[in-house]
Amino acid sequence: MNKLLFTPGPLTTSLSVKEAMLRDLGSRDMEFLEIVREIRDKLLALGNVARPEHECVLMQGSGTFMIESVISSIVPRKLLILINGAYGRRIENIARVHGIPVETVEVEENRKITLADFSVNEEISHVAVVHCETTTGMINPIEEIGPAVLRAGACFIVDAMSSFGAIPVDANGIDFLISSANKCIEGVPGFGFTLVRRRELELAKGRGRTLSLDLYAQWAGLERDGQFRFTPPTHALLAFRQALRELEEEGGVAGRGARYRRNHEILCRGMQELGFEAYLAPEDQGYIITSFRYPKRDSFRFEQFYARLSELGYVIYPGKLSREECFRIGTIGRLGASEVRGLLNAIRTTLGV
Amino acid sequence: MNKLLFTPGPLTTSLSVKEAMLRDLGSRDMEFLEIVREIRDKLLALGNVARPEHECVLMQGSGTFMIESVISSIVPRKLLILINGAYGRRIENIARVHGIPVETVEVEENRKITLADFSVNEEISHVAVVHCETTTGMINPIEEIGPAVLRAGACFIVDAMSSFGAIPVDANGIDFLISSANKCIEGVPGFGFTLVRRRELELAKGRGRTLSLDLYAQWAGLERDGQFRFTPPTHALLAFRQALRELEEEGGVAGRGARYRRNHEILCRGMQELGFEAYLAPEDQGYIITSFRYPKRDSFRFEQFYARLSELGYVIYPGKLSREECFRIGTIGRLGASEVRGLLNAIRTTLGV
Repeated sequence: MNKLLFTPGPLTTSLSVKEAMLRDLGSRDMEFLEIVREIRDKLLALGNVARPEHECVLMQGSGTFMIESVISSIVPRKLLILINGAYGRRIENIARVHGIPVETVEVEENRKITLADFSVNEEISHVAVVHCETTTGMINPIEEIGPAVLRAGACFIVDAMSSFGAIPVDANGIDFLISSANKCIEGVPGFGFTLVRRRELELAKGRGRTLSLDLYAQWAGLERDGQFRFTPPTHALLAFRQALRELEEEGGVAGRGARYRRNHEILCRGMQELGFEAYLAPEDQGYIITSFRYPKRDSFRFEQFYARLSELGYVIYPGKLSREECFRIGTIGRLGASEVRGLLNAIRTTLGV
Repeated sequence: MNKLLFTPGPLTTSLSVKEAMLRDLGSRDMEFLEIVREIRDKLLALGNVARPEHECVLMQGSGTFMIESVISSIVPRKLLILINGAYGRRIENIARVHGIPVETVEVEENRKITLADFSVNEEISHVAVVHCETTTGMINPIEEIGPAVLRAGACFIVDAMSSFGAIPVDANGIDFLISSANKCIEGVPGFGFTLVRRRELELAKGRGRTLSLDLYAQWAGLERDGQFRFTPPTHALLAFRQALRELEEEGGVAGRGARYRRNHEILCRGMQELGFEAYLAPEDQGYIITSFRYPKRDSFRFEQFYARLSELGYVIYPGKLSREECFRIGTIGRLGASEVRGLLNAIRTTLGV
């Protein structure tokens, strides 16, 4: 059965995106190199930036590999991480495993990070924050945080994994903007990407703490001959080129964001009618993924609920909160109003209400 | 145009392998977890090993990511690397970037590594060698090197990237056997795998030098709930499951090896008739990939030769030798005698002979 994925990714993608993978391209073939160049150019344009001030680097692996590539390739005095969920803590884990000096500001998972929460002292050279904290669905106000970071003379690193492509982001105010193929651009998993201010990229030359994840070396390889240093996921890149074209056809970030927002509105209204309570306050909640508290009735067993929905063809997502029992429903991927209504019907059936 | 890939990978794969990617599976979905388990079990069986003595760990990214995962996760006194090509040197680069104490023995690229070339003193805890050195196509005698390494009390690490699945390898005599999805098993690129002696894996607990590439943590995640710690390349895994089934249908390693050997024989005979000289002595040469010297005539320009063959639908591979001008032709992937003859005809046309 081909189930619909109401998750933070891998997502349901269009058939045409998957069909783009029905070819084997050589990783040094001119056609493939042109596809890689097209992808990098279009990603820069999506972030509203351009060469030579900004560059786009692709990295094999999951989005976390891309984040580790950035964090392990910077040369910080100290990295300040603003945390309100598991993905912020993951950045901290990456920094610590590489012995990078770290300071953290952690607020409750149901609270937005605000300017009042942190200050950037002179020890701090880099500040990292997650845009859409997938743990909850919270949208952190990077358009307020970024200018404060830059004014203080630090670099701004944004994990825009699950927002880029569906929420407008101006990468001009960001030094490292990180996302992945299998999120709102609706490609398949296999690589991540970073829009990076070239000045900061050049500082990373020769300073990578790994071979595979060396950000500068990866960029230099792509610039030298258009090739990845190590075998690229050719099929995932073919799918992504098609996904970028379909994003344009949908009206770019605005068009896609509008569909996801409608998905989210239909979901929240329906879930409320079914008696579910959203974890976040509506003003903090993005339209990417939504956390719902377990219902109060004793008979609710999440594993059972999940399995029954899955049997009906709808895959939802478990929670990841530290303190509250929630599950999550994503509203991204190749899903529209009728699929969301289908999910709501399946939930109604499953609960027997 | 769908060109045939006479390269070391990404390779030409079967249509059915690619068609297996026409689905989106959730990374926590039970069906997906069963596929991952099936893949890990079949890989162990292919290496002639089993649980609980051996384990199979999968890692996102290219084969190099898997090698870096192993090298950066071991806890060596000193790593001895036996080198006769670029892939041996790459292992050295990985070890050095992680500050791992290294000793190297490097022999000429046209020479097999023999027992006379090295000794394992008591400082050495791990010895690494490349099985099929893709730089040349050389097959190093791991069945002789391995017992000597183990007798000396060291661990044996084999980069079997381009041999596993087509050349019989008994992983019982190997502590870390490393390969990748897009080589002789004929999957698409997106992940690597290691067959590892469980005892050695357990020693790596908490000792990873990265987050993403931590071998023990990756294994522990797969064991805990069957899931990857970070987003897996779900489509590449679906393709790989199909590729493993097609390997069985072909008669396993023996059947596949026989086809590749025949490809190689037809290629070498044809290239000889066209006046090309193989770089390696026949007794050192495997049937995976073959290096040919540039012809002596002054008019030969590799870039032109490559481009014309590519226009005709045949993708070959440039050389990677330190000192000699060669190009390479792979004889692996979903290619048989008629495709090799097609390539030879295209070469004849291109040369105008």
